[in-house]
Amino acid sequence: MVEIDGDRLLDSLRTLRGFGSVESGVVRPTFSPADMAARIWIRDQMDAAGLDATIDGVGNVFGRSRNDGPALIVGSHSDTQPEGGWLDGALGVMYAIEIARTLAEDPRTDQLAVDAVAWADEEGTYTNFLGSRSFVGELPAESWSETNAEGESVAAAIERVGLSQSPLARFERGRQVGYLEAHIEQGPHLEDRHQRLGIVTSIVGMRALQITFLGEQNHAGTTPMARRKDAGVALFEYCVRLRGRFEAMAGPATVWTIGNARLEPGADSIVPGSAWCGLQFRDPEYHLLNKMEAAAHGIAAEMTMEGPVQVSAERRRDGVSPVEMDPALRGHLAAAAGLRVPGEWIDMPSAAAHDPMVMTSHLPCAMLFIPSIGGISHDFAENSNYDDITTGCRVLADAVVSRLRQTKSSSI
Amino acid sequence: MVEIDGDRLLDSLRTLRGFGSVESGVVRPTFSPADMAARIWIRDQMDAAGLDATIDGVGNVFGRSRNDGPALIVGSHSDTQPEGGWLDGALGVMYAIEIARTLAEDPRTDQLAVDAVAWADEEGTYTNFLGSRSFVGELPAESWSETNAEGESVAAAIERVGLSQSPLARFERGRQVGYLEAHIEQGPHLEDRHQRLGIVTSIVGMRALQITFLGEQNHAGTTPMARRKDAGVALFEYCVRLRGRFEAMAGPATVWTIGNARLEPGADSIVPGSAWCGLQFRDPEYHLLNKMEAAAHGIAAEMTMEGPVQVSAERRRDGVSPVEMDPALRGHLAAAAGLRVPGEWIDMPSAAAHDPMVMTSHLPCAMLFIPSIGGISHDFAENSNYDDITTGCRVLADAVVSRLRQTKSSSI
Repeated sequence: MVEIDGDRLLDSLRTLRGFGSVESGVVRPTFSPADMAARIWIRDQMDAAGLDATIDGVGNVFGRSRNDGPALIVGSHSDTQPEGGWLDGALGVMYAIEIARTLAEDPRTDQLAVDAVAWADEEGTYTNFLGSRSFVGELPAESWSETNAEGESVAAAIERVGLSQSPLARFERGRQVGYLEAHIEQGPHLEDRHQRLGIVTSIVGMRALQITFLGEQNHAGTTPMARRKDAGVALFEYCVRLRGRFEAMAGPATVWTIGNARLEPGADSIVPGSAWCGLQFRDPEYHLLNKMEAAAHGIAAEMTMEGPVQVSAERRRDGVSPVEMDPALRGHLAAAAGLRVPGEWIDMPSAAAHDPMVMTSHLPCAMLFIPSIGGISHDFAENSNYDDITTGCRVLADAVVSRLRQTKSSSI
Repeated sequence: MVEIDGDRLLDSLRTLRGFGSVESGVVRPTFSPADMAARIWIRDQMDAAGLDATIDGVGNVFGRSRNDGPALIVGSHSDTQPEGGWLDGALGVMYAIEIARTLAEDPRTDQLAVDAVAWADEEGTYTNFLGSRSFVGELPAESWSETNAEGESVAAAIERVGLSQSPLARFERGRQVGYLEAHIEQGPHLEDRHQRLGIVTSIVGMRALQITFLGEQNHAGTTPMARRKDAGVALFEYCVRLRGRFEAMAGPATVWTIGNARLEPGADSIVPGSAWCGLQFRDPEYHLLNKMEAAAHGIAAEMTMEGPVQVSAERRRDGVSPVEMDPALRGHLAAAAGLRVPGEWIDMPSAAAHDPMVMTSHLPCAMLFIPSIGGISHDFAENSNYDDITTGCRVLADAVVSRLRQTKSSSI
């Protein structure tokens, strides 16, 4: 078992927290001054851990091991939401650096190859998964013109922060044999079930539909009820029917949300002529996502037949398929967790999206979760227990060593 | 019976349509250049009809009869919605002028006192019923600082159009004994029932409530369904329950509308933490409005008890009570209609608001409706049959004469 220095790990997490620190949280969106200062510090930490570290042409901080392969990539992202917590992606980045330097310090492990990474823009300040998509060669040319809320494009931001001449870090097929990421859970399951670690089975898939209601705009005073084609009434009815239908088919990890809705023209004394709402649903099972999508279309069709409002559902482009984590890497995590926290770890799906969704079609991936206090994340109040933070790093380190041991002759 | 010149009436309506004409409709919001040009033309028409006509300090065009009282005020408003039809208020204004000049041309009626009026801003471009409220002394000081959509205040607009030094026309208690207004129906009832005239029994009252939902904002991916306090789900449920409850208690003229709704923060991947919708309902019966308002509060209370979202209903300031039209004046209209269109007129409530709502606490009021083709109003497509337009004017003229005859010795 690898002896991680918990105090050193916590000190480095606290130092990283200082870049963009606001109250108890962190404001460090991608390519902000705080984000770039943090990336320079992370690069220096990787260098000090004995890695060949660079900030690449999209902002990824990549610390390549000087050892021969096979190598495991370990890491996460260092950017935050507009109002983020101090752990989120930072946790997995500092785990990677702590593991790299701990293995380098011990002659029993100093020949193992761990590449550490801090991905750029996982949170999508400009475009989701910018760093990992670039790394595996899946970043389309259009992504360079995507913008942040202030209208600055990816290309302009990269020019501004001085990275436009930097080479891109790229996946080395053959040498790199897997990707491991630790993250806070961002939900309440581990805490609710008194568990200390979660090993991710799959990352849930997501579908997004826009439901559109076409009725007839009219005067709210002079139009009798029987003559109305009220798009708002249809929207409310749709949403209540959908809830009943989805409740009946939901699995244990299914979630769905109508997060936005509009009645048009949206005046108190006008019968709405049209309306729309945004429906999003997530589940680890591909077939259940299909079943739910069919139900959403089915209610639209039945309501259109019933009249008087036409209802249609249209899939929006940002759907993602569920992604299975690699069974072999999960096995290494499970073995390590079984030794460190026997009976206090579980298999669980990830309800949030993470960089392994991008990586998984190129190399085996696995993820480890530690509990989020109160299930809170993407919020200044985000936090985890210090014991859980160090335990997670130790389990991840053990799994890294046991996986790399399979193809190296040395023993710990 | 009074012999109205239908061609002259239609010519004058067509001339008025020319002020602000756009396609088949009219854009003549209060204090726009088109509105002021129309008011000057209307003043000149009143002058030519033998009235002492002025544009007063809030834009009312008031043509005072030179005859001794008692006098009836006849008229309507000449402003339009941002996209209005050619008849709406214009119809009642030109009826008044046509009646005044027809009575003046005939020695049997030339001693009757008809005051004609074109009210300012009935539509509320700046503030609803500006002209009639000023006329009866019910315009509070705050109204002068109310603004149009461009942010211009009433006071600034009146300064801009050069009326700030003009005296205000005021109600003359004792001399003026009633107010009569003709208007298009703005709804489909007359056309549906193959009727040519409607005599208004009452103007419906209106209540407006804001319903507010307080839940808890959360991540739409990582928050399990059972832990959510989704304000949007509560809003949809509320609106569907309300519909069932209101349908069970509605009278023949009851209407209700949820014309606007918002989920906050309104993002597809965030569980709404709060939400609100605007509920408006109308009925001629005061007790039914109370019953409906109690039901709206009751559903809020029962849902709050059920949890997990807190629901509250709050009355907004723009509620208005139902207003009864004067039975005696209605009798004069009914008698005239019975002679002109026997079996083709009905008593009916007005589902829309009109200046008599303001006038009725100061003097007896009545209203006459002519059919709207397709029930359409506040739209470029608004129209009425020419026969109905002339018939309405004749019936209104007959009622004016029969009412004034009761206190005059001359006979027609």
